[in-house]
Amino acid sequence: MAAGLSRGRPCPCEWIVYERLLVTDAIKLVGFDGDDTLWHSEAYYQAAYADFEAIVGEYVDLRELALRQRLLTVERANLALFGYGAKGMALSMVEAAIRVTEERISAHDLHRIVELGKQVLRHPVELLEGVREAVEAVAADYPLVLVTKGDLFHQERKVLLSGLSEVFERIEIVSEKDPETYAAVLARSGVKAEEFVMIGNSLRSDVAPVLALGGRAIHIPYPLLWLHEAEADFEPEPERMAELAAAAEVPDQLRVWRQRGLFRHPARVGSGG
Amino acid sequence: MAAGLSRGRPCPCEWIVYERLLVTDAIKLVGFDGDDTLWHSEAYYQAAYADFEAIVGEYVDLRELALRQRLLTVERANLALFGYGAKGMALSMVEAAIRVTEERISAHDLHRIVELGKQVLRHPVELLEGVREAVEAVAADYPLVLVTKGDLFHQERKVLLSGLSEVFERIEIVSEKDPETYAAVLARSGVKAEEFVMIGNSLRSDVAPVLALGGRAIHIPYPLLWLHEAEADFEPEPERMAELAAAAEVPDQLRVWRQRGLFRHPARVGSGG
Repeated sequence: MAAGLSRGRPCPCEWIVYERLLVTDAIKLVGFDGDDTLWHSEAYYQAAYADFEAIVGEYVDLRELALRQRLLTVERANLALFGYGAKGMALSMVEAAIRVTEERISAHDLHRIVELGKQVLRHPVELLEGVREAVEAVAADYPLVLVTKGDLFHQERKVLLSGLSEVFERIEIVSEKDPETYAAVLARSGVKAEEFVMIGNSLRSDVAPVLALGGRAIHIPYPLLWLHEAEADFEPEPERMAELAAAAEVPDQLRVWRQRGLFRHPARVGSGG
Repeated sequence: MAAGLSRGRPCPCEWIVYERLLVTDAIKLVGFDGDDTLWHSEAYYQAAYADFEAIVGEYVDLRELALRQRLLTVERANLALFGYGAKGMALSMVEAAIRVTEERISAHDLHRIVELGKQVLRHPVELLEGVREAVEAVAADYPLVLVTKGDLFHQERKVLLSGLSEVFERIEIVSEKDPETYAAVLARSGVKAEEFVMIGNSLRSDVAPVLALGGRAIHIPYPLLWLHEAEADFEPEPERMAELAAAAEVPDQLRVWRQRGLFRHPARVGSGG
């Protein structure tokens, strides 16, 4: 007989077992992205880009030049060699500036462009509003993993400066966020995809690959997004995906999924099952 | 009563217990460094440096200029921001070339310098002589961890191209090789420092920090060494350290340590202990 919510005489102790079983089964690990989910990042990249544009604009007419698109083309060509991060961006900016100005740009100005990359690496780590409270609330219920992409050295520095490193059971700095990477992260934690919820600002990196594995994802858009991240090709899965306005709403969303799990799997439960 | 080698009538089954206990106790994990321990690396950096020197030499008299030392000064100042690796080196080369030429270097030549960094990132992964056989022989007796420092993306590529990734139980790409890093690696593997042997070409990165923790280390010098790695400040520990000419000698050295362990801890063993 199927036990659960429909039973006539729910017994309190059975309910405790029920709750525990399902909570354990439903969500065993919650992942957070770092850049633009926990702390501000893209704003610093875009500020560097604006300065880059001003420097290059001294040599060429920006109105005639799809500069942003040309930089992205250089960056993408270099991604396979550089991976993500500010050092790769700085090298790509140097390269794009040289190409776009047809080698007319001065060493002085190229040095300024290298400095733009350093500024991004030096940026302060400021948490988004409500993040600390939300992360701590989730940590009270679930083990947390930070899954952040990019330059190892820079990401380690940001994790440290965020003051959040103690809240996470594991910190996974990865070079790419594709289904293979998430599968390896889950294997290291001994958790199945169905038991995992990933939270982040990028459909491409935080949502699509986790849905593809069979996990759940919470998308919290950030006002700024790198063009490269804006392209995501995936099937939305309304049952396994939520879009929230802010981190503060995360604990409620996890509660909703937990409740829904209670209704969905009543047969798994208790003495009458 | 102390059991062991000095006992009059050794019993075969007791010996098996004895052997197992000690082997397990003595060495539980063997670590290998990557660059210039498993595969060639520094040669590519030094080739890039030679090309860099040739480019800068078109602007300044290299005889009057301690160029290598000046590049190292720039690199070291940038290490705190860039960490290790070829992208940081490329940015530092661009910066050093601009400074040393007092901004006279052309955009064309700076582009050539960026390309030098890319060449290093693209270099083929060639194992040192005898490495594959040695690593496989050690893997037959002990779990292996690869502990390699530098750029996440580049190191992952090298591990993949090395064809050795399957031999290692864990692959740890770290941003710095200090005692804290090794302690974290050992904690993740659940192994004590005394049970760990690290093998690598750098006294500074592979030997000194592991000895400091109480572990053992095998130093296999490589003919070329980055100036930065050449500086190591540590107390040699002849009992816990070996210097070998090639990876092929590693299995024998591990056997020596295992045997010495057998003689040193006889009291721990067997039914009479």
